Amino acid sequence: MKLTVEDLVDVGRGAAFLGTGGGGDPYVGRMLATSAIQEFGMPEIVPPEELDDEAFVCTVAMLGAPTVLIEKAACGDDVDLVISRMEKYTGRKVEAILPVEIGGVNSMLPIMAAARSGLPLIDADGMGRAFPEIQMVSFNIYGVPCTPAVICDDHLNSLVVETKTAKRAEDLVRVASIEMGCSVIMSSYSMSGADVKRTSVQGTMTLALEIGRAIARGRQRGNPVDELVNYLRTTPYYNYSKILFSGKVTDLKRETTGGFAVGHCHLNALDGSGKSMQVTFQNEHLVARENGKVRAIVPDLICMVDSETAEPIPVEALKYGQRIKVVGVSAPPILRRPEALDVVGPQAFGIEDEFIPLEQL
Amino acid sequence: MKLTVEDLVDVGRGAAFLGTGGGGDPYVGRMLATSAIQEFGMPEIVPPEELDDEAFVCTVAMLGAPTVLIEKAACGDDVDLVISRMEKYTGRKVEAILPVEIGGVNSMLPIMAAARSGLPLIDADGMGRAFPEIQMVSFNIYGVPCTPAVICDDHLNSLVVETKTAKRAEDLVRVASIEMGCSVIMSSYSMSGADVKRTSVQGTMTLALEIGRAIARGRQRGNPVDELVNYLRTTPYYNYSKILFSGKVTDLKRETTGGFAVGHCHLNALDGSGKSMQVTFQNEHLVARENGKVRAIVPDLICMVDSETAEPIPVEALKYGQRIKVVGVSAPPILRRPEALDVVGPQAFGIEDEFIPLEQL
Repeated sequence: MKLTVEDLVDVGRGAAFLGTGGGGDPYVGRMLATSAIQEFGMPEIVPPEELDDEAFVCTVAMLGAPTVLIEKAACGDDVDLVISRMEKYTGRKVEAILPVEIGGVNSMLPIMAAARSGLPLIDADGMGRAFPEIQMVSFNIYGVPCTPAVICDDHLNSLVVETKTAKRAEDLVRVASIEMGCSVIMSSYSMSGADVKRTSVQGTMTLALEIGRAIARGRQRGNPVDELVNYLRTTPYYNYSKILFSGKVTDLKRETTGGFAVGHCHLNALDGSGKSMQVTFQNEHLVARENGKVRAIVPDLICMVDSETAEPIPVEALKYGQRIKVVGVSAPPILRRPEALDVVGPQAFGIEDEFIPLEQL
Repeated sequence: MKLTVEDLVDVGRGAAFLGTGGGGDPYVGRMLATSAIQEFGMPEIVPPEELDDEAFVCTVAMLGAPTVLIEKAACGDDVDLVISRMEKYTGRKVEAILPVEIGGVNSMLPIMAAARSGLPLIDADGMGRAFPEIQMVSFNIYGVPCTPAVICDDHLNSLVVETKTAKRAEDLVRVASIEMGCSVIMSSYSMSGADVKRTSVQGTMTLALEIGRAIARGRQRGNPVDELVNYLRTTPYYNYSKILFSGKVTDLKRETTGGFAVGHCHLNALDGSGKSMQVTFQNEHLVARENGKVRAIVPDLICMVDSETAEPIPVEALKYGQRIKVVGVSAPPILRRPEALDVVGPQAFGIEDEFIPLEQL
């Protein structure tokens, strides 16, 4: 796969869609990636199957409050430092960069890291979407240790965490990241090429690009939401996809609590049917209920887009009166298995409803 | 210097005295050290001058809230782990264990670490007393980097911090230690034998032992406080020493704020003179004022002992009505220089009074 700087607009828009309301604004990430590419050149993007089974790879991501990420971007030296610390701590040379999530800003940061380090970027990630916590990735679900995890702030203070569980790493990294100013660069989930093939959600950089392209194509044809949904139906993971609701924001409750944007958004139909939908979120959208009945639930993707332009709308940009289409998208099968639902299913977010696949709702 | 298990009682009592009200109760530490010695044998205790200039040494200590240390002691594996992580991170084999502070529980933990690891213990530390924060040591004052610093909890989750300044390490380690349950084992300030000779407060393990012995001897003779003060006057550091006040606790304000025991203790004289003393503390005693006039101020040592038995009384054991003698003791000269006062002088604790040596007050 070959990317150009121009493609980053489409990748960013596709990643914002897959962010399901969270994941942070890819705009700043795109600036960072563009600047790194201009200085160091476009990184090679390789499909997981081309990786050597023995290759040593690690993830690179931003971690923190999305509101802070926008103001306190990566400086570059921090990205280089987490990779070199990971190499020092593991005693291995990193051979490729792996995105931890494709949704939002973390679609872009690995491009920056790969460009700066001259390493190839793997066309895969650990979510096929965005999730708020670092244990919520397929790598953890299928047995890849999260730690050693390295975090680094903009003053190049760094931290290496080694824990028994990924959840414990999340707890420690979270408090440290708050002390470090709520936005840090992290490298974690170092693994072999064989582990990438076994545990990752594959091809997601390409999928983000194609989602962005479908929206752009749809805008030219005057039907961006339909074009988007039609494209999703041709993909290997997101193939069950439908418009769940079309309406107007009539109520919005959004708090910033415990480092998360938590709340719900209420939509009323505009067709006079009297139908309404409530979408509950914790950074990402978690459950969509129509007149009280569940229509889609995490880990399936609940995405809000502008009714006219199909522009993905993050939780922090939701406003009273917005015209929105709610698109339900099937999660990658690797996230729907019982062992995955323990980590990224409704109960992991404190929701009592059981997971039922979108296509059965 | 040769120690026996029986000596640990005297070392612990001397360390409690040097803890100047803080440093944590050495009792639990003594249990840990005794148990380690019974299993692994008494470690060799070496004076700094016997160290090879090229030798690689590191500190081992407990860090956290003294109230929690009592209930959540070191398990042994955690002590071994911080040393092995330090070795892994620095790529050097640790050749000797160095106490970071002699006051309180951290007089005992290095004995445990040395016994378990079979390494010699250095008869020196970085304070010659106790202080609440990890940048407040002579090693930092005289240019030894605090980091890499390794901390480990009782589940053997670990963290390596690398920062530009010791104060930044303190900030990060503190929040992580709270998340890890308010009591962790730490290894930090790795340095050469030459650095130990240049920056440490030397002979303090021997001094703690001899202080404890002086109190025991005084009890047999019926004058423990006098015996203690007389012994201190023969030492190289604590040689200016006097009883500042003798009285009864008539008021006590003690809060636990920001992980510290903060407040003041008011004493009234019992001789009918109407004199009174107020001692202000943040874990350790910081300033003693008689009728408003400063009589002793940090980094000089302000120690409270029972009037009859000379038993050192930690801040958490102060009670209304207690009969107490307040002993002022000169700090080691290495802590009294201008560069040291920036880090451990009154201003470092938010006190406006300038440092004036005890002997000039």
